[in-house]
Amino acid sequence: MAYSVDDLLKFDIPEIIYGPGALSVIGRCAARLGGEKIFLVTDPGIIRAGWVDQTLQYLKRMRLDCVVYDNVVGNPRDFQVDQGAKLYLQKKCDVIVAVGGGSTIDTAKGIGVLATNYGSVKDFVGCNLVSQPIPPLICAPTTAGTGADVSQFAVLLDSREKMKMCILSRVIMPDISIIDPTLLQTKSQELIAATGMDTLTHAIEAYVSSLSWPMTDPHAVHAIELVNEHLVRAAETKDIVALEGMAVACLEAGIAFSNAILGAVHALAHPVGGIYDLHHGVVNSVLLPAVVRRNLDHAHDKFAVMARALGVKTRGMSTAEAAFHVPEKIEELISRLGLPRHLAELGVSSDDIPMMAEMAQQDICMLTNPCTYSTRDIEAMYREVW
Amino acid sequence: MAYSVDDLLKFDIPEIIYGPGALSVIGRCAARLGGEKIFLVTDPGIIRAGWVDQTLQYLKRMRLDCVVYDNVVGNPRDFQVDQGAKLYLQKKCDVIVAVGGGSTIDTAKGIGVLATNYGSVKDFVGCNLVSQPIPPLICAPTTAGTGADVSQFAVLLDSREKMKMCILSRVIMPDISIIDPTLLQTKSQELIAATGMDTLTHAIEAYVSSLSWPMTDPHAVHAIELVNEHLVRAAETKDIVALEGMAVACLEAGIAFSNAILGAVHALAHPVGGIYDLHHGVVNSVLLPAVVRRNLDHAHDKFAVMARALGVKTRGMSTAEAAFHVPEKIEELISRLGLPRHLAELGVSSDDIPMMAEMAQQDICMLTNPCTYSTRDIEAMYREVW
Repeated sequence: MAYSVDDLLKFDIPEIIYGPGALSVIGRCAARLGGEKIFLVTDPGIIRAGWVDQTLQYLKRMRLDCVVYDNVVGNPRDFQVDQGAKLYLQKKCDVIVAVGGGSTIDTAKGIGVLATNYGSVKDFVGCNLVSQPIPPLICAPTTAGTGADVSQFAVLLDSREKMKMCILSRVIMPDISIIDPTLLQTKSQELIAATGMDTLTHAIEAYVSSLSWPMTDPHAVHAIELVNEHLVRAAETKDIVALEGMAVACLEAGIAFSNAILGAVHALAHPVGGIYDLHHGVVNSVLLPAVVRRNLDHAHDKFAVMARALGVKTRGMSTAEAAFHVPEKIEELISRLGLPRHLAELGVSSDDIPMMAEMAQQDICMLTNPCTYSTRDIEAMYREVW
Repeated sequence: MAYSVDDLLKFDIPEIIYGPGALSVIGRCAARLGGEKIFLVTDPGIIRAGWVDQTLQYLKRMRLDCVVYDNVVGNPRDFQVDQGAKLYLQKKCDVIVAVGGGSTIDTAKGIGVLATNYGSVKDFVGCNLVSQPIPPLICAPTTAGTGADVSQFAVLLDSREKMKMCILSRVIMPDISIIDPTLLQTKSQELIAATGMDTLTHAIEAYVSSLSWPMTDPHAVHAIELVNEHLVRAAETKDIVALEGMAVACLEAGIAFSNAILGAVHALAHPVGGIYDLHHGVVNSVLLPAVVRRNLDHAHDKFAVMARALGVKTRGMSTAEAAFHVPEKIEELISRLGLPRHLAELGVSSDDIPMMAEMAQQDICMLTNPCTYSTRDIEAMYREVW
């Protein structure tokens, strides 16, 4: 036999329910998973947008009790997870529902882990260290970016060390993801742009990951096509068709990266986001062109496919020539979205680059990048976009 | 809101573990799902091929007891399901493992339904009529064709009425599908050809189904590309690379059709297969070109994409022109595989056509065909390929 068991490929995603108005089935889903007392994780912005009231009505219709926990911020903190888990246990809840963006969903995952595995977030940082199943988890994402609703990742902030901690475990995969594109209409233009670039980064990194395979590739490529078609329009006009396109792009990119894992962009983004408390999508966007330029030579064929997905007319080009257009197209997209191009614009000090490079090299996402980088290489990439 | 809840789209698949040698994790999977006494459904051919002995070893390594049930035939009978369910309950099993082709997996699903819902198979025929969850179900398919290992369908034969009964329910979706392409090496050439055409039929019908959507489309198209690339070689040489291609094609076509459902080919094939006890893949293959010709005008754009996936150089053609090549390419493929082209070759009497047309029109798969057909239209299609 040419392969060992270590070469086996996995593909695991939640049950997905998609469509404008899909939020209305959230009560039925919670009841189906055995819920009687629901722990609803959300954030104050989502409450203001009115989605929590709607969710509570849908839960009430199924006669489900609900405890709301809204102490969630961007780059969610370990202590918020601790606090949520305590409340979950104290109130004797049985199903977790997350309505919000990636931070909300990652907080909900963390709460789930501590609710059944006890201990602290730190105990579960790494690959497959969560042993007990978490409570049933339903997600309704309000941003099209993170894909946290379909992934086996949770990224939480060590508030003391200002370091992002990554939990990667099959056990934290949500049970049901309810994707209702109408929820995206209350996002700001900036958030649509930033989370859209997060989606593009997921798709690109998953497509060239060393764990990509025929089940993840079609989703990654289709996500890139959809971002190319819909992101600028979604950010500029909040047109519902464009938002639907981005909802599906985010879903497919999430499916691709959860199963193929990520690469150097995420490895480099985690220290920056952790230390400076910046939006993950914006940091990814700044780093993406520099990392792609260095990755190009290690996956010409796939970058040539991406060039076509990004609208480059590649007929008559060699794969190397076609691949070469990818970072240019990404930079063009960033400019059209009006997003920053440099780390300095985000307040990052160049003094921190050596430390961040050390942290990036230890990041779990570096393992599946199509090539390896020395700490010096990583420093060089940070400086290129500084 | 422009949509109602009825317009919501679903996407649900098992956890997938893929790769040569993947069968070896079957014991670990059964243990992870809480198994202590495994009910192994298989058929005598699979036992002779040696895969059951291997499976038993992998289960034993995890100290799991096992009851083997091998009374499975093509077009599996209702009474075989009854018998299996009785044995499952009598032996107090807790996890079902199916190692075999589509008939074995459908039998296992039926046993699962009766083990927790009681009654008889007939009580559950139709859409979402299974209320109680079935026991955990792990499938290891030994053919690349049916996609039963990733689908929410089970097709069983009413042995008295000689009618195929279709159970369609989220509840019968397997929990884990273990796809080990080395298992395909013990298939006969005829079976590789016939099951491969079944896969092609799934992909084509799912792609033009009225329930297709962006999550199912990329899998359907990729499956068609893989069939075009690998099926003839797989059937002629059993080359492992070609078999791997067909394993992934079957997986992706299965994912597409389980979530987008099927169409008129399956609606017409079920009565033929039920009355004459014929291989489902062969019957699909005979009917496919005639149905595709009539469906063409209702999905030009998608048939044009399929033409490209089947290797037609469509540059400069209108979508209608490109679409026109699809049935020709299918007929070419059938000829290369040496499969029959006519129902008469399979022993089907033309006297039965009116009755079969009535049955086909009632078939659940007809609901998602891109257009509707009168009984007269259906008769005409049967006669075209008789």
